[in-house]
Amino acid sequence: MNPIENRPRPGAWHGNGRRIHLQEVGTRDGLQMEQAFVPTADKIALVNALSDAGLSKIEVTAFVSPTAIPALRDAEIVMREIARRPGTVYSALVPNVRGAERAIEARTDELNLVMSVSETHNLANLRMGREQSFAALAQVVATAQAAGVAVNVSLSCVFGCPMEGDVAQEAVFGWVQRFADLGVRGITLCDTTGMAYPTQVAQLTAAARARWPGADFTLHFHNTRGMGLANVLAAIDAGADRFDASLGGLGGCPYAPGASGNVCSEEIAHALQLMGYDTGVDLPALIAAAGRLPALIGHDIPSQIVKAGRRLDLHPVPDGFEAIRERALARAAP
Amino acid sequence: MNPIENRPRPGAWHGNGRRIHLQEVGTRDGLQMEQAFVPTADKIALVNALSDAGLSKIEVTAFVSPTAIPALRDAEIVMREIARRPGTVYSALVPNVRGAERAIEARTDELNLVMSVSETHNLANLRMGREQSFAALAQVVATAQAAGVAVNVSLSCVFGCPMEGDVAQEAVFGWVQRFADLGVRGITLCDTTGMAYPTQVAQLTAAARARWPGADFTLHFHNTRGMGLANVLAAIDAGADRFDASLGGLGGCPYAPGASGNVCSEEIAHALQLMGYDTGVDLPALIAAAGRLPALIGHDIPSQIVKAGRRLDLHPVPDGFEAIRERALARAAP
Repeated sequence: MNPIENRPRPGAWHGNGRRIHLQEVGTRDGLQMEQAFVPTADKIALVNALSDAGLSKIEVTAFVSPTAIPALRDAEIVMREIARRPGTVYSALVPNVRGAERAIEARTDELNLVMSVSETHNLANLRMGREQSFAALAQVVATAQAAGVAVNVSLSCVFGCPMEGDVAQEAVFGWVQRFADLGVRGITLCDTTGMAYPTQVAQLTAAARARWPGADFTLHFHNTRGMGLANVLAAIDAGADRFDASLGGLGGCPYAPGASGNVCSEEIAHALQLMGYDTGVDLPALIAAAGRLPALIGHDIPSQIVKAGRRLDLHPVPDGFEAIRERALARAAP
Repeated sequence: MNPIENRPRPGAWHGNGRRIHLQEVGTRDGLQMEQAFVPTADKIALVNALSDAGLSKIEVTAFVSPTAIPALRDAEIVMREIARRPGTVYSALVPNVRGAERAIEARTDELNLVMSVSETHNLANLRMGREQSFAALAQVVATAQAAGVAVNVSLSCVFGCPMEGDVAQEAVFGWVQRFADLGVRGITLCDTTGMAYPTQVAQLTAAARARWPGADFTLHFHNTRGMGLANVLAAIDAGADRFDASLGGLGGCPYAPGASGNVCSEEIAHALQLMGYDTGVDLPALIAAAGRLPALIGHDIPSQIVKAGRRLDLHPVPDGFEAIRERALARAAP
């Protein structure tokens, strides 16, 4: 370790206007876990509010079996009826060629494909081995490419598997290379259960960007162990500029009941804007959208910003403050 | 801004064995807010568990009016009967000379004095103007110095006041100087309601350390807006090595019901140890101590680590995993 590299450099905590892209996953990753079916019109209004709030990409829904995930059984209608904001990318999760065909028919801008770099997690979550997943997803990639639709691949458990433990970086990078060989440029490195920590994130992010300079990497963190924002900052320091986040912090962690799931969109936007980064996000609009979630899903949300407000959303003085001040002044008199 | 200072430097996220001191405030700052009176024997056992877990300093209790804070009415007994671990500093909050005399009599290692750098917050919280607080605390400092007991001054609202907004750095530093002029070396810069953000923290911490190189600065952060760990890392990058934290994340924020309060001791220790810092903390022992809190205080605690475990506390495969694997293998067969 070069000691010069480790000297304090407070200026480096300032974003200096650097553009960071926030990509919303709450409408898919969050809503798919909810017991309540959010009415289709409310989903469309929510996506439209997220568009208006300036998020770079929105994972609108998933084109999956409606019996497997009934919460998203209205994928076609939602994707067709949202208002498209120029410049915003509207993506959807697709698990197979049938889902890809449905998504493309509904004018999805980008297909998001998911597999895990952990064999155990892939089997537990997708009921296939990794090679089976890869073969299926290669067909989806070909379908998208034939239709001229963009593809992003989200790799789960990149920073560790809750059942296997650490996954070797070369194993992770082997899967990145196999998708890169198919012509996929968008790769999301997912910390699926909140196992990532900043040192690891900085190292892996820098290594991935050095190896695939032409790829568009997104980092996807969970706040399960309280390290979400710190991991975002470590990834930014290593050159990353695209992050998934979830409105209100929607989307828990099935391996840790009660613990936080996805990093919260408005918490990340609030922190990055204070630090001088340009997120392109209208923060009051984003917080207002998050504030409408509890009525839609029927329960409280993890968002600290919805609870506490922005740092300069000031509070009134307590009741009786003037009397307190007067008594203090009287005691101070000579 | 020097662009060279802003280049990615992933190696700098590694602690390289640097010593970071974690100072526990939960037994005072946390328990004083609880409705339940934690029995004296349980408080003593809790402090002893924290000593065994290796925390550098423990704010054991407060020598205040038992009618004002009945939760800590057993201050003398707790301070006298805890087991003292060599090298650990046992501190207590004292508001005035009477409290200081009680604390000294009970063999407190260090007196912690509190005032706010915001006039409004000081009036609302302590019912005195800042000058009145300073005059009272100057007497406490003299009392401690006459008895040869160490003093630390905790300055509230250094990173912002929830009623006034930002507090000018020169105003903050004016109060630091006035206590330094009294011979006080220990100063805690407190983010009382979670308004600090990393850029501000790095800048202010570096400036304070440059101006008072002989002082012992502690940073005290709240996670109210999700920036607690990031602020700790920013302060470390600016040279700080002492941090307050609260077991289980005890101690909420009166200005934001439901939001987090103090940063959580085991979350900070978990993250810093993963990053290669030496906290001196026995993490399993600390987590075990936090796990006993809900039974003592009668409600759940914010700690994400108690809920989710350490990152490599692995989970079993789901029920029926072998059948899933066999079906997947069967499908994969030619």
